[in-house]
Amino acid sequence: MEHLKISEAQRIIFESVAILGSEMVALEQSLGCVLSDDILANRDLPPFDVSAMDGFAVRSTDLAAAPVIFKVVEDIRAGDMPTVTLLAGQCSRIMTGAPMPPGADAVIRVEDTQEISADTVQIGLVVKCGHDVRVRGENMQSGDVVLPAGTEITPGVIGVLATVKAAQMQVYRRPRVAILSTGNELEAMNEPVDPNKIPNSNSYALMAQVQALGIEPVLLGIARDDPVELEQYLLRGLEYDVLLVSGGTSVGMHDYVRPTIEKLGVSMKFWRVAMKPGHPLAFGVMHRTNKASESFVFGLPGNPVSSMVCFEEFVAPALRRMMGNPRLYRRTVTARLAHPVKMRPGRTEFIRVQLSSDEAGYLASSTGTQSSGALLSMARADGLLVMPADSTGMATGDKVTVQLLDGTVFQNEMGFKE
Amino acid sequence: MEHLKISEAQRIIFESVAILGSEMVALEQSLGCVLSDDILANRDLPPFDVSAMDGFAVRSTDLAAAPVIFKVVEDIRAGDMPTVTLLAGQCSRIMTGAPMPPGADAVIRVEDTQEISADTVQIGLVVKCGHDVRVRGENMQSGDVVLPAGTEITPGVIGVLATVKAAQMQVYRRPRVAILSTGNELEAMNEPVDPNKIPNSNSYALMAQVQALGIEPVLLGIARDDPVELEQYLLRGLEYDVLLVSGGTSVGMHDYVRPTIEKLGVSMKFWRVAMKPGHPLAFGVMHRTNKASESFVFGLPGNPVSSMVCFEEFVAPALRRMMGNPRLYRRTVTARLAHPVKMRPGRTEFIRVQLSSDEAGYLASSTGTQSSGALLSMARADGLLVMPADSTGMATGDKVTVQLLDGTVFQNEMGFKE
Repeated sequence: MEHLKISEAQRIIFESVAILGSEMVALEQSLGCVLSDDILANRDLPPFDVSAMDGFAVRSTDLAAAPVIFKVVEDIRAGDMPTVTLLAGQCSRIMTGAPMPPGADAVIRVEDTQEISADTVQIGLVVKCGHDVRVRGENMQSGDVVLPAGTEITPGVIGVLATVKAAQMQVYRRPRVAILSTGNELEAMNEPVDPNKIPNSNSYALMAQVQALGIEPVLLGIARDDPVELEQYLLRGLEYDVLLVSGGTSVGMHDYVRPTIEKLGVSMKFWRVAMKPGHPLAFGVMHRTNKASESFVFGLPGNPVSSMVCFEEFVAPALRRMMGNPRLYRRTVTARLAHPVKMRPGRTEFIRVQLSSDEAGYLASSTGTQSSGALLSMARADGLLVMPADSTGMATGDKVTVQLLDGTVFQNEMGFKE
Repeated sequence: MEHLKISEAQRIIFESVAILGSEMVALEQSLGCVLSDDILANRDLPPFDVSAMDGFAVRSTDLAAAPVIFKVVEDIRAGDMPTVTLLAGQCSRIMTGAPMPPGADAVIRVEDTQEISADTVQIGLVVKCGHDVRVRGENMQSGDVVLPAGTEITPGVIGVLATVKAAQMQVYRRPRVAILSTGNELEAMNEPVDPNKIPNSNSYALMAQVQALGIEPVLLGIARDDPVELEQYLLRGLEYDVLLVSGGTSVGMHDYVRPTIEKLGVSMKFWRVAMKPGHPLAFGVMHRTNKASESFVFGLPGNPVSSMVCFEEFVAPALRRMMGNPRLYRRTVTARLAHPVKMRPGRTEFIRVQLSSDEAGYLASSTGTQSSGALLSMARADGLLVMPADSTGMATGDKVTVQLLDGTVFQNEMGFKE
């Protein structure tokens, strides 16, 4: 069987999967979704010229003869509207965000003034017109596209959505995902420990990988090696947008799952991808003529680490594309190797590593045995070090690329110089 | 007022906040929680010596005379128990993960064999004892601590928890968080647009920042500038583990919220922190004698960007510490500046930037106006570029440190060489 490059397999997947429809979501439930419509400003912000500081609003021309003693004619707090127009030698005490009084064109912050009496203040600074004033519409003008369709909803975006009073908004809907494990050797969570069996970890690791993308998947359970039972499970799974099947064994997926799933109308492609851990990977599409919609099936290796790595490289990008997110690939960082790595060239290798840091940046070190059954090495990993297929190994200190895994949005150290 | 360093203010906060108690959580709801107990292996994995490949189990000594034709005496699939003990010249067809038959001590993968007939196969390789065999207990041994207390539950960790059949487990409980905005100038989400008012974006941006940490906060609403109303809101807020108060204006928080909250028994510390945007920041502790528990209050600036940045630098680390997570700080990456940055030394500056990448790594460029009212610049940001307090500016191409914000777990490009 031909060995595809990772990017080739991704390209074939991306050619099939498209953005799903959109749905309305409440602001409180929108974090991580992607806007499917442009969001327009519904007001000017600031709504008028406002002070950028706590201080005194003045006529900047009055400052030419600094130091000058001003008479304080009004106190303007945020939320107040000023009532007094400033004349020469007058100022208004003003709070950050409060509207500028008529006549004033600059603000002197309180730290740069000296209180002389309850209603007089001395200012020794000379500033230009507009100093520490935020101009009407500086942040947004009514009708502006403030957030274009395709924007991922982050906390900062939610702040902007609240600013334009978007209590709900159209977002691309999240795919509905079902997860199926197959194989007589699997032991379900609620079954007693049987040393002849393998605990079904794949369903749960895949569940968590899907959850980490903001999608709550459905676990279908374990289909035993029985064609009738398998067909029933697959039929249920094909009701979802995406069905993840983690195979009993590599040959089993191809020889056993394939005929049943193709019988149900799924056009399956099986590949060996030139990556380690990984192969084989299966991808299929079922066009549902009656619903004008499609189901996508991913056949993942039965080996726990291979299944997780294939999810990250192929399934996660596909799910994010369906959700309308332009960011499809895991964040990468550059690190130095803490130890040499041997490699037989031919396939791109993903090595589970922990990251630490020193003044020169990140250091990557293996989490231990890289056997594809060693799920613990995945549990301990901060990232996947990517060894290019043409590499014959790397030496201590060599620069390498590491894909960050979940749980790495935060780190142990502050990481910057104050 | 003294200007504290960021790390000093963090240290004072960390001295007060401690890990909360633990609670039981189902595996399906555990992603992002932190284990409060060690997790022990409940079985050996693999449970016996198993094949690491699809191929043929052989007696390695038989291979000395390679090429050798073997008689296939049994088919062993994953989940099967072998029944035939291998004699000289015999092999068993074996699947990945299936138990090794008695007598066999090595596996030759199918690609390295030639089928001669239905029950004979030729092998031309010489391998050592143990080749492509995974030894019993290689991945975990019954009684081993496989996951120590303090481990953040990632998808890989969930895979391991499922492996040891942990359908539920003890985790540190998440803090209960309430969010209160204060100020007459604020316009609630359900109120009509009034140009004299400021939309209440802070409550929602803070909500989303808390949600991004896996905590569902309670929004208390807006307390107007009325001592009785404020006291009622604060009393409600102090029922939670953490109360976030985003202040109307900077002076208002100190002069207005402080006396009311101190009257309720909260010991408040107010600081100016040597950072921009940021000050002032308030932090307080209330010891509840009747409940043997504490409430923590953070007073955040009213300015939307300042509020968000203070949350990231002070509140997020405190909440993560309470959840038992050893990773307190946002992930940082090194980038090159795409343009010069001017700076007046004295305070650590956080500049909202977008990240792009080229072959030499990340490039950081400003998201536009850095006014602390410009929430859009936060919505567009991938990260916060940190300018050290002693800097007088940086030039194009200078190396800088960028804290990654939410929404940056994924990126636009694959980011590695295959």
